Amino acid sequence: MAAITIIGAGMMGSAMSVPARDNGHQVRLVGTHLDREIIQTLRKDSIHPKMKRKLPDGIEFFQIEQADAALAGANLVICGVSSFGIDWFADEMLRILPHGVPLLAVTKGLALLPDQSVRTFPEVFEQTAKPGCSVNAIGGPCTSYELCDRHQTHVAFCGKNQTVLRKLRDLLQTKYYHISLTDDVLGVEAAVALKNAYALGVSLAIGLAEQAGGENGAPHYNSQAALFGQSVREMEKLVLFLGGRRESVSFGVGDLYVTIFGGRTRLLGTMLGRGRTFGQAMEALSGVTLESVAITSRIAAAVRALSDQEKLAAGDFPLLFHIHEIIEKGRTVEIPWERFAKGEG
Amino acid sequence: MAAITIIGAGMMGSAMSVPARDNGHQVRLVGTHLDREIIQTLRKDSIHPKMKRKLPDGIEFFQIEQADAALAGANLVICGVSSFGIDWFADEMLRILPHGVPLLAVTKGLALLPDQSVRTFPEVFEQTAKPGCSVNAIGGPCTSYELCDRHQTHVAFCGKNQTVLRKLRDLLQTKYYHISLTDDVLGVEAAVALKNAYALGVSLAIGLAEQAGGENGAPHYNSQAALFGQSVREMEKLVLFLGGRRESVSFGVGDLYVTIFGGRTRLLGTMLGRGRTFGQAMEALSGVTLESVAITSRIAAAVRALSDQEKLAAGDFPLLFHIHEIIEKGRTVEIPWERFAKGEG
Repeated sequence: MAAITIIGAGMMGSAMSVPARDNGHQVRLVGTHLDREIIQTLRKDSIHPKMKRKLPDGIEFFQIEQADAALAGANLVICGVSSFGIDWFADEMLRILPHGVPLLAVTKGLALLPDQSVRTFPEVFEQTAKPGCSVNAIGGPCTSYELCDRHQTHVAFCGKNQTVLRKLRDLLQTKYYHISLTDDVLGVEAAVALKNAYALGVSLAIGLAEQAGGENGAPHYNSQAALFGQSVREMEKLVLFLGGRRESVSFGVGDLYVTIFGGRTRLLGTMLGRGRTFGQAMEALSGVTLESVAITSRIAAAVRALSDQEKLAAGDFPLLFHIHEIIEKGRTVEIPWERFAKGEG
Repeated sequence: MAAITIIGAGMMGSAMSVPARDNGHQVRLVGTHLDREIIQTLRKDSIHPKMKRKLPDGIEFFQIEQADAALAGANLVICGVSSFGIDWFADEMLRILPHGVPLLAVTKGLALLPDQSVRTFPEVFEQTAKPGCSVNAIGGPCTSYELCDRHQTHVAFCGKNQTVLRKLRDLLQTKYYHISLTDDVLGVEAAVALKNAYALGVSLAIGLAEQAGGENGAPHYNSQAALFGQSVREMEKLVLFLGGRRESVSFGVGDLYVTIFGGRTRLLGTMLGRGRTFGQAMEALSGVTLESVAITSRIAAAVRALSDQEKLAAGDFPLLFHIHEIIEKGRTVEIPWERFAKGEG
């Protein structure tokens, strides 16, 4: 039995308590300053108010002021914050981790540096982590509520140290939570970050089909599949350019699949496809900030810079830039199908 | 305006008449000996009895005995038969094609030679085609009824001759039918053939979820996505081994996506996932022969042979062999999740 401290009591962080508790570990779930009410609610009845699921018995719940106590003697720390909490975690949390405890981050996204180059979150963490802290991350298709329901799930743990990765897998793998190990941190992290942008892209077709009225009542899967294929081509091109490996892209592709079928990114994409502008759609979504929107802007900026430096061709990313223009310029959806078709023999 | 003769009046062959007619071509649709009633029905009201769609006006309909007349003066011949008609087409039709007319095949699948090696259908056709006949094929996500409804669609035309490919694209591309061109015949054809086997694999998760009762009423997308990711890894490994290019795999991935959402392969996979044996499921499906079943057996035999020759590792294809055992040995579904997880760092 190990002591596992999860920092971030959002849906994904909280869901990680399920395989951890099922393996008999001591689990300490720490809410950030944004999770205060979640922790209060969980202390009452263990039912997560956003996920609408009861967490396993025996979890200890902590408010952020109690983080030191929650971290004392931990064998593993899981970073469960969203991409918007990355800087906070890097600045405030990494320095209070006990010496030598490995970190495992569930956060998906990429950071954009002032020179418009991208960094994975593990790379960001390594900038401020104490010496001896092994930084690892989880990528791949895993929605929090399904993990909580113990549905069959397959993810990748990525990190530099194979011995640490094996230890993390031993701690967390269960009959329903299956874990591949890889040292291709960049490939996995870039692929699963990009999927958020492209899930928005594929979802556009759902709204477009609704708008078109669905002739004969049939849904439009040809167009979804065309956007899915284009997403795979653009994701793969970018991941390989950044230095990731081909095999790792499949975790982003699986993650793209699962992201299309649920959550607010699909909702946003569908509303845009129906004809709303980005501003109108965000108003309807009460202005909630979405990871898909943040990552699209970052990646578009990075690809634009690489294209200006003649390292990548912006023309190879027509879907990315169309999504970007919808978000940044209030453009209405007009999928550039012709630009997906390539004529090279 | 060109004269385009389509041989095979099944759903996909017939649907090709839509972009052809929209571009103003003369279209001649020839039924095989299996399509006799379809042609009789189409002559009455142009409504395709299987697709339940009205074909465009102005198409000429022919029974197979009139094939010579339908082929006279054709500028393009489209092979619209299913994979079960490939040998018939190669033996009976190729020899009566007018000299120099290019062929474009919509048929998806792979042939298995007696030595257990696989051949693409264009390769099969080239064995019996007359000198000067350019053999080309269509791959990628395109369901017939959606093409008939003029939904946005993106496919790849593959062939050896770039000039011919451009000509075919000029004949058939429309505002809704978008065409990439590639000389990677093997990559496209292998990828889109394999997707039929793997669509069966991903569909198993739909039935498994139904059987499990869907806790909290939520569908299981984690498990579908895990199978989708595994499918992509296995497809890619095999396509690259056979000599196809990485970029071509995305047409198979898009095709996998569209195939999961409709048709009898999904129905079969779902029934198997719910717990029926293959025999019971086929009985419920009135014993109709499915391309997904045929391709699974062929690919499993080919991979087994390659593994015996130590050219490929059968262990890299756990999903393929599980589907194969369900079909061949009446095994019940028990997804080998552990074997999907790889430990290499």
